[in-house]
Amino acid sequence: MTAPTTVILFGATGDLAQRKLLPGLLHLFQTRLLDDLRVVGTSLDDISLEDFRDLALTAIREHSTRDIEESDWRDFVQRLDYAPLSAGPEALRRAVDEAEAQLPGDTTLRLHYLAVPPKAALAAVQTIADAGLVENSRVVMEKPFGHDHATAVALNGHLHEVFDEDQIFRIDHFLGKEPAQNILAFRFANGLFEPIWHRNNISHVQIDVPETLGLSQRADFYEATGAYRDMIVTHLFQILAFTAMEPPTALEPAAISREKNKVFRSMQPIVPTDVVRGQYSGYHDEPGVAPDSETETFVALKCFVDNWRWAGVPFFLRTGKRMAEGARIISIAFREPPQSMFPKGSGVGDQGPDHLTFDLADRSRMSLSFYGKRPGPGFRLDKLSMQFSMHETDWAGAVLEAYERLIYDAARGDRTLFTAATGIERLWEISQPLLDNPPPVHPYAQGTYGPNQIHQLIAPFTWRLPFERKWREKRV
Amino acid sequence: MTAPTTVILFGATGDLAQRKLLPGLLHLFQTRLLDDLRVVGTSLDDISLEDFRDLALTAIREHSTRDIEESDWRDFVQRLDYAPLSAGPEALRRAVDEAEAQLPGDTTLRLHYLAVPPKAALAAVQTIADAGLVENSRVVMEKPFGHDHATAVALNGHLHEVFDEDQIFRIDHFLGKEPAQNILAFRFANGLFEPIWHRNNISHVQIDVPETLGLSQRADFYEATGAYRDMIVTHLFQILAFTAMEPPTALEPAAISREKNKVFRSMQPIVPTDVVRGQYSGYHDEPGVAPDSETETFVALKCFVDNWRWAGVPFFLRTGKRMAEGARIISIAFREPPQSMFPKGSGVGDQGPDHLTFDLADRSRMSLSFYGKRPGPGFRLDKLSMQFSMHETDWAGAVLEAYERLIYDAARGDRTLFTAATGIERLWEISQPLLDNPPPVHPYAQGTYGPNQIHQLIAPFTWRLPFERKWREKRV
Repeated sequence: MTAPTTVILFGATGDLAQRKLLPGLLHLFQTRLLDDLRVVGTSLDDISLEDFRDLALTAIREHSTRDIEESDWRDFVQRLDYAPLSAGPEALRRAVDEAEAQLPGDTTLRLHYLAVPPKAALAAVQTIADAGLVENSRVVMEKPFGHDHATAVALNGHLHEVFDEDQIFRIDHFLGKEPAQNILAFRFANGLFEPIWHRNNISHVQIDVPETLGLSQRADFYEATGAYRDMIVTHLFQILAFTAMEPPTALEPAAISREKNKVFRSMQPIVPTDVVRGQYSGYHDEPGVAPDSETETFVALKCFVDNWRWAGVPFFLRTGKRMAEGARIISIAFREPPQSMFPKGSGVGDQGPDHLTFDLADRSRMSLSFYGKRPGPGFRLDKLSMQFSMHETDWAGAVLEAYERLIYDAARGDRTLFTAATGIERLWEISQPLLDNPPPVHPYAQGTYGPNQIHQLIAPFTWRLPFERKWREKRV
Repeated sequence: MTAPTTVILFGATGDLAQRKLLPGLLHLFQTRLLDDLRVVGTSLDDISLEDFRDLALTAIREHSTRDIEESDWRDFVQRLDYAPLSAGPEALRRAVDEAEAQLPGDTTLRLHYLAVPPKAALAAVQTIADAGLVENSRVVMEKPFGHDHATAVALNGHLHEVFDEDQIFRIDHFLGKEPAQNILAFRFANGLFEPIWHRNNISHVQIDVPETLGLSQRADFYEATGAYRDMIVTHLFQILAFTAMEPPTALEPAAISREKNKVFRSMQPIVPTDVVRGQYSGYHDEPGVAPDSETETFVALKCFVDNWRWAGVPFFLRTGKRMAEGARIISIAFREPPQSMFPKGSGVGDQGPDHLTFDLADRSRMSLSFYGKRPGPGFRLDKLSMQFSMHETDWAGAVLEAYERLIYDAARGDRTLFTAATGIERLWEISQPLLDNPPPVHPYAQGTYGPNQIHQLIAPFTWRLPFERKWREKRV
């Protein structure tokens, strides 16, 4: 399926490696999606190969979402190597050479995975260069991809000194989720939805990603970042692009990437008065947070894609920490029909417009809400819902977790779910008016849906959450 | 809710009265939808009032779909009267006068329900006239409304000598089903579907009503009628009108009726070569059937509504007896998207186009089938389905049975679900080419979906049944 591959895992002893990457690599190996595989771990920890293998086994046992048998593990562990960063680039090069010697064929792919903090990323790139490991390689990077427009341009400049753009895979684990990819299938494989997918029929779009988590001890990172940089630029705008893009000429990485970038180019700069920033009460008491911090832990905003398809259709984005629920919802609200054809009191429109909702939660769903006739005499309307859940099909077992999918795609060189430098830079460019003039931070109580100002922001519409959740709980 | 009403039930001891009308009237009385109600039964049977009340009780106990308590019945039985036809029109008049004297108010509605064979209908109308019961009255008629264009015009002429058209309620129990009415709600109360409800996006429509029943001892009626006259003209064309009509100016009876008649006027005459007639093997052995009978027990046809919305979109209708299953399906097939954007082997279109299906069975459903991404690596598409079932909501108890709904509507004077004389006459007019030159009858085995010729008829499309049924069983 894929060429023989050596994964060079920077940050191999870190949190992301333990929770997602090592379990994901095992699964890809087991399912033979990455058959001829070696993994060379590296990190600041001076540990032995034996220690690394023990750490990996512990991590896999603790974090794999699948049952792991001794036999699953036995083959995989032989393919793990380790070279501490302290031993220098040459040691890393030797470890990779030895790993590649175990693999069949003349050339192997080197997949550098930078599971390191942002400030360590360029150092890792330098190590790759110093070790002479750029050839035949791809590099997978984690967000953030810059801090504003200038730093994003600078970061890409440094990266491009070592790697060509087509070697760089900027990962967005939101897009690795099956339902995100299903947006493309849903829109373009069906004769039913694409014809109405534009301003004539859609009144607005909501992309809503509340989280219940707090900082989880990342205060130094978060204080300098905030919800907008952490979530909107890297994740929610990517989802927006899948939702809004024109049909690509083919469902192929380059064609999709071109259409995503066109969406970003059509986006209007973010207007600070169209943004609600929030901070949960108690944030100042978190360890590592400045007592006068104005970092936002919540952001809701209205933005526009100014092209023929979407002119005048607001996109509402919302995300934040310590909110009432964790959810990942894309909701398409359709325009309402002429009302006067219905008898008074029929109830049309009383429960909001029709919605098509993609739920990107782990148990992914799609639902369609619409009005139907309430049974019985007369003509009273009520809101109904049709639902589709991935777990109700025979498919459930085949689902790849987001990181598995993305590692596999990077190994195959499929860029569909990754973000190009030009796209990232454009997103920082439209963000700059907001970053330069951020509106005040409003407090919100933990366990809510954000500060009260969110309702003015979205008026005359309403946020689908928490309604969507209650609806679903009632029906299921 | 409704004015005081006397139901004069012709054929009061017959099959329809026992199975549907008496249980339905009890339910309408119990639920206070028809509060001030009297029922005067009449028929050819010379029985006493006591006998009629016993017969009604037995019928209700046997045929009501709801649990009946002694107390439910006690009030209702006091409201039943009986006058045998043999006693003459004056006796019927006296019975109605006495019933009306028991009801409050000065004027009561007289609702004549003609639950009698076609040839007895005009005699019943004459009895109503002779008894002087035309004033303040409405008459509810059962199909068939004629045998061809000439007889339909003649029948309406005779009716109009006694009743104005707006007093005549031609019943179609198909349209009394909740899902049929839901077609209107679904199309016109939602911003989602009406914009794509036309030839640009819909490739064809299927209205499919197979039955498992045989003749049930009605050979003399059926031999002279056949599936086309019995089902297509009276039921399937009505459903077609709801599916195809333009938005009415209001969801009111007169406006809806106008739009239905416009559909009938736009329908092209039925072309005999677009019709498949069938006869199940063994039909000739049924008691009362002529050994050389060419009556069709099955018909499938293609027809067109030649207006701006539907030009070039075929409507496929099918119904027959002794078929593989009983079903009542309306299926809207959407056009397929451009195929070349998908990678080879992705599976788009492999499982037919997207469908929106209304299921008019007793457990009514709507479903929407579409393509989604099969989870896992790569981009393989598979057909998914979202479903909505009426019985999954809190509403189930409120559903009126078809005849209950229709009696109630006639008592209220709501003509939405009834057919006008001009509409019926137009349907016979477009049917005349087929009636004049019927194509040969093809045999089909009992328990199948009809003769083989049905596949040529619908090509390049395919019939949704039996696929739709299998699909549903798999998913539920």
